[in-house]
This record gives sequence, structure tokens and C-alpha cells, in this order.
Amino acid sequence: MDKAKIPYSLNSKKVADATREWLHKRGVKISEIAELVMLLQQKYYPDLTMEECIHNVEQVLTKREVQNAVLTGIQLDILAEQELLIPELQEMISNDEGLYGVDEILAFSIVNVYGSIGFTNYGYVDKLKPGILERLNDKSLGPVHTFLDDIVGAIAASASSRIAHRKQAEREIEKGEESIDQAK
Amino acid sequence: MDKAKIPYSLNSKKVADATREWLHKRGVKISEIAELVMLLQQKYYPDLTMEECIHNVEQVLTKREVQNAVLTGIQLDILAEQELLIPELQEMISNDEGLYGVDEILAFSIVNVYGSIGFTNYGYVDKLKPGILERLNDKSLGPVHTFLDDIVGAIAASASSRIAHRKQAEREIEKGEESIDQAK
Amino acid sequence: MDKAKIPYSLNSKKVADATREWLHKRGVKISEIAELVMLLQQKYYPDLTMEECIHNVEQVLTKREVQNAVLTGIQLDILAEQELLIPELQEMISNDEGLYGVDEILAFSIVNVYGSIGFTNYGYVDKLKPGILERLNDKSLGPVHTFLDDIVGAIAASASSRIAHRKQAEREIEKGEESIDQAK
Amino acid sequence: MDKAKIPYSLNSKKVADATREWLHKRGVKISEIAELVMLLQQKYYPDLTMEECIHNVEQVLTKREVQNAVLTGIQLDILAEQELLIPELQEMISNDEGLYGVDEILAFSIVNVYGSIGFTNYGYVDKLKPGILERLNDKSLGPVHTFLDDIVGAIAASASSRIAHRKQAEREIEKGEESIDQAK
Repeated sequence: MDKAKIPYSLNSKKVADATREWLHKRGVKISEIAELVMLLQQKYYPDLTMEECIHNVEQVLTKREVQNAVLTGIQLDILAEQELLIPELQEMISNDEGLYGVDEILAFSIVNVYGSIGFTNYGYVDKLKPGILERLNDKSLGPVHTFLDDIVGAIAASASSRIAHRKQAEREIEKGEESIDQAK
Repeated sequence: MDKAKIPYSLNSKKVADATREWLHKRGVKISEIAELVMLLQQKYYPDLTMEECIHNVEQVLTKREVQNAVLTGIQLDILAEQELLIPELQEMISNDEGLYGVDEILAFSIVNVYGSIGFTNYGYVDKLKPGILERLNDKSLGPVHTFLDDIVGAIAASASSRIAHRKQAEREIEKGEESIDQAK
Repeated sequence: MDKAKIPYSLNSKKVADATREWLHKRGVKISEIAELVMLLQQKYYPDLTMEECIHNVEQVLTKREVQNAVLTGIQLDILAEQELLIPELQEMISNDEGLYGVDEILAFSIVNVYGSIGFTNYGYVDKLKPGILERLNDKSLGPVHTFLDDIVGAIAASASSRIAHRKQAEREIEKGEESIDQAK
Repeated sequence: MDKAKIPYSLNSKKVADATREWLHKRGVKISEIAELVMLLQQKYYPDLTMEECIHNVEQVLTKREVQNAVLTGIQLDILAEQELLIPELQEMISNDEGLYGVDEILAFSIVNVYGSIGFTNYGYVDKLKPGILERLNDKSLGPVHTFLDDIVGAIAASASSRIAHRKQAEREIEKGEESIDQAK
């Protein structure tokens, strides 16, 4: 790629595709994130379907801020595996050091896109580590997932917030109220 | 209002209407917020129109998080005017105390909805106080606008971020690239 | 109070005293917050004492940002009880509306002071509502605690982060390493 | 380094030293950050000295969250220079893409440590790019500083907040008021 000749111009589709591709390469299926969403939301919406959960996860993944955080986090995990980081950073990331909180910070930039109501869901799954989060967090396995486990929890929390916003809109439409809280 | 009989159910349209009504009552016109947006964005998009700025401000105001922050901030301003607050809080809010930062916190919950790229624009207008912000920030006038000036700056910064996301999508459509970064 | 004659000047001690006084008036004991801290931290530090937990909660309460959030949140709870708010805001706060997230936003301004490592602990206690949080969250009791329950959880999460930072410093001192990560 | 034999244990001094060393290696002097602080604060405190500004910058740099953000940001800049990133991320970071906001997110994790009052100062210097920020932001020079310019602005904004908290404490001590807002 000769950068001197081709002026830079963001190609959003490429960024979006790379996000999905890298989640897949790092062993995360959309359906596994959707299972976390189901776990978080089924008590509030008993007729919530896996299809809806998957759809909401996919919508979250179309947001640029989410894509940026996913790619940056996975990148740092990979570089830690390859031992290519500054030694002090290498040690903190490869050992998932408790006082290193940049993984939580990236996770929060994901949750924030759907507003503060997702904070609680994020913290909850991040602490309990259900489903895929348990596997990602298992330090005995080879790969470094210091960033990825927080990111997956954050995507699930965001999709949960998105569902809460949507369900409210549906309720109001059923009741014949005109809603102007637009799709997020 | 007999709450015992009518079970609570959020009416989104009412919340949205109240947000616009209270901005108006507190002396803020949508067009004045749009002027801040124009000031922030015209150097990047020379053919940006006031119509587009107004449209983007209006879209920001449809977001629930924005409405919550606007209503809560204006409420605290009003109560400070009426001297109805806990004395220590009353003093800090009515004097726009520098070490009281809850106004900035509410402003950030607005900016966050369109992602971190709005942080800079918010800080910039909040420091320079152009246009309507100068009037809102004038302590010699009667009303307390400790929250409102930050909120108005945050809405303008959010609308600016929304424009940046949209313009990128337009550019890519023109170039024939399929964009999946959906409208925000 | 004749404001024209006495120029405003913040009295930090008064703000700090009001914070503790209002927590007490709203039925929150420092020891109850400390119990949440113990619950969150005892598995990491088996010899953690209640005395240490109380001390760390008290240190969190000396921070200005924490005081601002506590006073503002309690103020909004009280005004909701007194039905003095703008009707739409009144409804959302008195019913602890799920899509109203300003309570989480204030809580996060508390957690943030000790860094992102507190996010998870906050979300966890906010979801599980152990100890005092169950009582504060009981809607059948009279008072409105829409803000207070989140604030109490956030103070506990912050004190937990503070402990994590301190314990690390202690470990390093024991090992004879000079630490320059100062007391927070 | 044989990780199997030496169990991981964070050495805070090493992390702190690496932070200062890498700022230096990337061409940032503490005194240049202090100059930004002076620019931001001298109109509020006319007798503020460069010595005080330097001291406050140094104190900000003792905070773990700040060190984490500095090291992570510089690391991503360096890897972008070395063209070692995932292609899509490589393109966004090496071109300082406007819709990539992870640099602002890391910057905010720095500002947050001293509370929301720093948000405005951060946005202001990040927009105006005075002093060292102009040089760091000059894309015609070789190195990638996509993260570093935001980080330096954030450290200056944090030091400014720290000064505001300290000056208030000093004023109250002079007036004979006992302050319990502890050093931050």
C-alpha cells in the first residue's frame, strides 16, 4: 500500500467488517453475546426471543464507537500474546492486573453509547462471568483476553439497554401514544 | 393526580415535549443552539446550512438521555432561583461554584450519546462561551443558569458529532461504498 | 442571609459536614456502607477488618466530587417526595423509571474518582442490592431513594477501589519496593 | 523472563518510572506540560509559579490511572509508527481519523481522576493546540502522536483541576477555616 499516492479516506464498511471478523477470529460468536443479553433481560421481558437478542447485538455492532473499542481492545490482547508491548504494559495486560483499568474504560465507551442505564448490567455480568465470559476469563487457556471479556460484557449490556429503549417505544405504540424517542 | 389509581407508565412523548417546552421557557431557542453548531462545524463542512444544524439539534433532542439531563439540569437551576435547596447546595449552585462539577457531569451524559469525539467541542464552547452561552453565563442577569449553559453547549457538541458521523456516511455513499454505520 | 453584602466563598467544611449529616438524615449509616465494602472485598483480602472498611468509606466522603453527587442526589430524592418537581421529572424520579439514568450518572461521578476499576463493583451491588441497598430500594416504604441507593452503592465501590490501591502499596512496602503511587 | 517460575506481582515503581521515561522518549518534557497548565490557570491565580505547575503535573503522574493511560496510548502510537496494527486500526490511528475516539477516551480517563471540573480545560487545549500540542499534532513530522497529544492535554487539564482544589484549601486555611477536603 503506497500511502503517498492514495490519500486516506475512511471506509466504514471495512471497519465494520473487520470488527465482526476479529470477534469471530478471537472465538466470540454473536449468538454467545446474545445469550448474555437473554440472561440479563428475560426476567423483564419473558417473551424475548433469541432472534431479538441477536438482532440487538448486531445493531450495537454497527456503531462506530463500538467498532473502535472492539478493534483496539482485541489488538492489545493480540500484541500481549505476541509479547510485543512495552515490558511494564506487557506484564499488566498479560496478567490482567487488577489495578490496570483501561479494559474497563474501553468497555465503558461501548456501554455509554446507549446511555447510563447499561452501567449496572455491565458490572453485573463482568462480576459473575456467565457463559462465554467464563471461558474468555479462564487464565489457564492460552490466549490473552484481558480486553475481550470486558468488551463482550459491554456489548451485551449495550444490547440490553437498546432492548429497554425499544420495548418502551413498542408499549407506547400499542397504547396509541405517539413516540418520538427514535430508534437508537 | 391520584397515583394510587393510575399505575405509572412512562409517556415518552410527554417527556420529549417537556424538554422542548422548558428549553423555550428558559430562553433557549433551537436556532441559537444551531448557531453554536455552525460555529463549530463550518470550517470542516463549508457548505453546511443552518437548516442542517437545526435538524441535527432536533435529532439530538429526541434522545432520552438528553431529555433526562435537560430536565434535571433546568430543574436544579429553577430550584436554586427559588432558594428551595439544601443551604450548602443552594450556595454552590446559585454561585456557579468552580469546584461543583455536577453541571459538567450532566453535560457529559449528553455528549457521550454521540461518542467521545464530542468531548473537545464541548470543552471549547464551554470555555469560549460564544453566542447564547455568553448570555446564559452572565451572572449579572437574574436567572440561575448554572446547569443550562453547560447543557446547551453539550447539545451543540452532540449535534456536531452527529453531523460528523452523517457527513462521513454521505461521502461514502457518493463514492459508491456501502456503509453500514447506521444513522445515530 | 444578605448575599449583597457577604461575597460568596465556598466553605469546604460546611459542604463536607452537610454530606455526612444528610446521609444520616436519609437513614444511611457509614457502617452499613462499610458492610457493602466488606462483602465486595473480603474474598480478595481475607483479613480485612470492618474498621478498615469504615475508614475507607470515610476517606471517600472527604472528596469534593463525592460530596457534590451525594448532596445533589439526596436533594432530588427529597424534592420528589415533596412533589415539587416538573411533572414529567416528578413522575420519572418518584417511580424510579428504568429509562431515567441520571441517578446512575451521579453514581458514576463518584466511582470515577478512584478510577475505572470500581465500575464492576458498582454494577454488581447495584444489581444484587445486598444489605442496606435492599431497604433503600424497597418501593413499598415511604421515602423516595431513586438517587440514594445508587449513590450508596457507588461510595461502597469507590471505597473498594481505594482499598485495592492501598493494599497494593502495602504489599510493595513489605517487599521493600519503594512505591510512588501515592495515597488517593 | 521465565514467567512459570516468578509469579506475577505488580511493581508500581517500575510502572511509574516507565511512564516518565516514555513521555521523555516521545519528546514531551514535564515543563512543557506545565506551560499548558500555566496558560490555563494564570488568569485565575495571577501569582501561580512555573514551579507549582511542574509540581502539580508531577503529582498527576503519580496516579495509577494516569500511568495506565499514558503507557497504553504511547504504545498504540508506537505500534502505528511500526505499522504493526490490524490494517483497519492502522489506517485510523496513523491518519488520526476524526471518527476514531479512543484517544479521547483514554484522555478522559486521566481527566476524570480529578473530577468533572477538568473537562472544559481539556476540550479547550485540545481544540486550540497551544505550545507543545501544536508540535505533537503536526502531521508533517514523522512520528504518530494520535494518542499522545490528547494525553498531554489531559494531564495539563488534570493538573489544573488539582490546582483549583488546592488553592481553595489554601484560601480556607488562611481564613482559619478547617478544611477536610483532603489533598488529592
